[in-house]
Amino acid sequence: MKLIFSPLCLLAAFVMTFSAQAGQDDHFSDEDLAVARDLMEQGLAGDGGFEVVKDLTTRIGPRLAGTEDDARAVEWAENWLNDMDFDKVWLEPVTFPTWTRETERVEVRTPKIQSFEALAIGFSPATPEGGLESEVVMFDDLADLEAAEPDGVEGKIVFIRNRMERARDGSGYGPAVQARSLGASVAAEKGAKGLIIRSIGTSTNRFAHTGTMRFDDGMRRLPAAAISNPDADQLERLIELGEPVELFMEIDAQVNEPYTSHNVIAEITGSEKPEEIIALGAHLDSWDVGTGALDDGAGIAIITEAARLILESGHRPKRSIHIIYFAAEEIGLWGGRAWAEKHHENFDKVQVAAESDFGAGQIYELRARVVDEAWPVIQSIQTVLEPLGIDLGERRAFGGPDFSPSLPYGLAVADLQQDGTDYFDYHHTENDTLDKIDPEDLAQNAAAYAAFAWLTSQSPIQFGSGQALLDEEAAAED
Amino acid sequence: MKLIFSPLCLLAAFVMTFSAQAGQDDHFSDEDLAVARDLMEQGLAGDGGFEVVKDLTTRIGPRLAGTEDDARAVEWAENWLNDMDFDKVWLEPVTFPTWTRETERVEVRTPKIQSFEALAIGFSPATPEGGLESEVVMFDDLADLEAAEPDGVEGKIVFIRNRMERARDGSGYGPAVQARSLGASVAAEKGAKGLIIRSIGTSTNRFAHTGTMRFDDGMRRLPAAAISNPDADQLERLIELGEPVELFMEIDAQVNEPYTSHNVIAEITGSEKPEEIIALGAHLDSWDVGTGALDDGAGIAIITEAARLILESGHRPKRSIHIIYFAAEEIGLWGGRAWAEKHHENFDKVQVAAESDFGAGQIYELRARVVDEAWPVIQSIQTVLEPLGIDLGERRAFGGPDFSPSLPYGLAVADLQQDGTDYFDYHHTENDTLDKIDPEDLAQNAAAYAAFAWLTSQSPIQFGSGQALLDEEAAAED
Repeated sequence: MKLIFSPLCLLAAFVMTFSAQAGQDDHFSDEDLAVARDLMEQGLAGDGGFEVVKDLTTRIGPRLAGTEDDARAVEWAENWLNDMDFDKVWLEPVTFPTWTRETERVEVRTPKIQSFEALAIGFSPATPEGGLESEVVMFDDLADLEAAEPDGVEGKIVFIRNRMERARDGSGYGPAVQARSLGASVAAEKGAKGLIIRSIGTSTNRFAHTGTMRFDDGMRRLPAAAISNPDADQLERLIELGEPVELFMEIDAQVNEPYTSHNVIAEITGSEKPEEIIALGAHLDSWDVGTGALDDGAGIAIITEAARLILESGHRPKRSIHIIYFAAEEIGLWGGRAWAEKHHENFDKVQVAAESDFGAGQIYELRARVVDEAWPVIQSIQTVLEPLGIDLGERRAFGGPDFSPSLPYGLAVADLQQDGTDYFDYHHTENDTLDKIDPEDLAQNAAAYAAFAWLTSQSPIQFGSGQALLDEEAAAED
Repeated sequence: MKLIFSPLCLLAAFVMTFSAQAGQDDHFSDEDLAVARDLMEQGLAGDGGFEVVKDLTTRIGPRLAGTEDDARAVEWAENWLNDMDFDKVWLEPVTFPTWTRETERVEVRTPKIQSFEALAIGFSPATPEGGLESEVVMFDDLADLEAAEPDGVEGKIVFIRNRMERARDGSGYGPAVQARSLGASVAAEKGAKGLIIRSIGTSTNRFAHTGTMRFDDGMRRLPAAAISNPDADQLERLIELGEPVELFMEIDAQVNEPYTSHNVIAEITGSEKPEEIIALGAHLDSWDVGTGALDDGAGIAIITEAARLILESGHRPKRSIHIIYFAAEEIGLWGGRAWAEKHHENFDKVQVAAESDFGAGQIYELRARVVDEAWPVIQSIQTVLEPLGIDLGERRAFGGPDFSPSLPYGLAVADLQQDGTDYFDYHHTENDTLDKIDPEDLAQNAAAYAAFAWLTSQSPIQFGSGQALLDEEAAAED
């Protein structure tokens, strides 16, 4: 991952920009601005929380929701946060169905045996004992499969070959991931025996990318696995030779009894409006492959370091700041759903929420979903963040996966949008390991989150979460 | 892999350099020079043999020496070469011990289970049924292990952590690979139970790199595996936590009965001195992981395309040109040894030999080991190759792995030295697949090999293979 701005360059930009900006803001006091800039400077000088993600990924490693490693991670999180100077640390239970992978194997059998790098897709059922073998039929994408006559699919293994496009904002993911989310159920409806997809990832390294399929009640499912990009290329070439190609697939995996894990939450209690909350999130669970360094150890590091910077600044924020380590994001946003269910009735108190869950690339843009009155405050915050290389984005935001279940309840959210150009090279693979994180990039992120949390806590404006935002949006649609 | 020169840039350089050079050479006729330049131009305009390596890696895929895939590859090679316009294609038997990998597993067991990406090292014995588990003891490199007292090693699993350095000429490989070649026998002598090494590779991607260990008669061996660079980092971090670290390793593999494969050789018969030979080599076998695209499908492509360019030029070389696909290079240079044994008595007829076995990076330098009288001819050839971005290197050469067993017999060899900066990112890994080859880089290689083979075949000078070269070298040492 290339550095967009080196820390030295950013520090130099600070010195120049600080003096130019001082006293020019209508929304924040000079003192609040000075604290924000000091937080950024301290943030850039630090490691961005690299020690946090290093400790998490070294001691715990992968931590699939619902496993013993999940419990270990929650214990690790409680200990880590308790060792800091938070005012409160607590757990909130999250219950969810779980799935475990035992083994997977995908091979070409005809014209000759060749092994593929494969990972079962989360919630894939197991194949029948001894695996299954069949001719393969290739489709360009999910729509191509949807349009197919069942005659050409029945009894076969379906291969969906759509290739994810690389983009800074990760926009290639949405269109491509349909094959993983829904491919198995569409193929099942047409009588296929199994599903193979080209991995939803951008790297040409030979790693398969896992992830979940949808598993709504009553939805038929098939054994399904993703193969790496080079293997998908190989399968395409074999099919293009024009001779029949038969695949073998064997998956041992099972859906288990529901498990109860926990969202882990730490609070810096606000000095003036402690009941009003700035919520920073990341998720603690990871896939069972890799060590969950970029996804989402980096996010855990960033928000924890942002809180540490504020705690160590000697300044107490007016509003409370919550650091939320969400549970079970990967297998269905369960931590985010539980948080929405538990807290949505108090969303008028939650000012604004932002999750860091897009790796460790630098933040290049600030976007937000807030009420009209608060948008100028967001603009003002962006001006403060600008020396970090952060531009103002559109007035819409997603908030991150774990805040998405809160969006229908009107949660005001911000996106501190990271450069995700390389993110999908590593996402959900065995290759998501600590060495992929650049502490300098992480530091830029922590600096931005610290200043963002500080300034939103100091603003007298209501960001409008809950009914106010829903009402305003409804009015805008009329 | 970055292009050093784009083909367009190279073609432009040609037009300029050709006219400047015409008629300025003492060693070659204007016609021979013109043919060489035309071969280079045609070579750059082609695909460098990409279709060759595409077909080989798609239809056959991995082709470990001694397996059914080895036999398939030999059949593929015979068919491919017979479909070209060679004057002769024949096989020469090569017999060697073989080894097969079934499974390998390396895990941290204490402080908690974490799986590592591992590959057994070739000729590793199997672990006892059920695997073996022991405390790990870490050494900086082979010398550090050699210096250790047996007390600290006995009954333990040895971990050698030396990290291969990246270099254009691959010079980091030699020092690092000692841990793989000899680590298991040194550890065995000190009573260790098993050996784990940091992969001999330069990538931070999570691939283990396989390769052979030495297995001389009477040498004790231990179960041994390589773990990927990120896993080796993780193991170092775990050890540095200061608590005991225990590993589990389970390898199922066996040494099999000797197998007979074949070197596959094709000849363009020389028009004036058919008994004199220019030998271009590459090896047909590959490791069982990956599809052997860079190692050494690329070499197969390059020399095959070089021959095709000469065959299609309409000009017949004065000396014979041999294209040699060596057998069983990876597991002990068996094809190269067999060729040396069979042909060394006629080395006075083999003018010069060069193997392409260093991936698909561009050639940047020409080196050679030839008699004094022939060195000016090599210099002259380099002048012709210069528009391809090829400099003159030192007057010493290795000839490539499969010609190395011929060096003690005085074989004159040349190195068309490739840029191997990225080669050890992929070498001996699952990630050595077709997509890692850039056809433009391959074309530069084929262009250089074609011109080199043509010019060495046209030179009236004897390059001195055999006794002449040995005598000259002995005299120089006196």
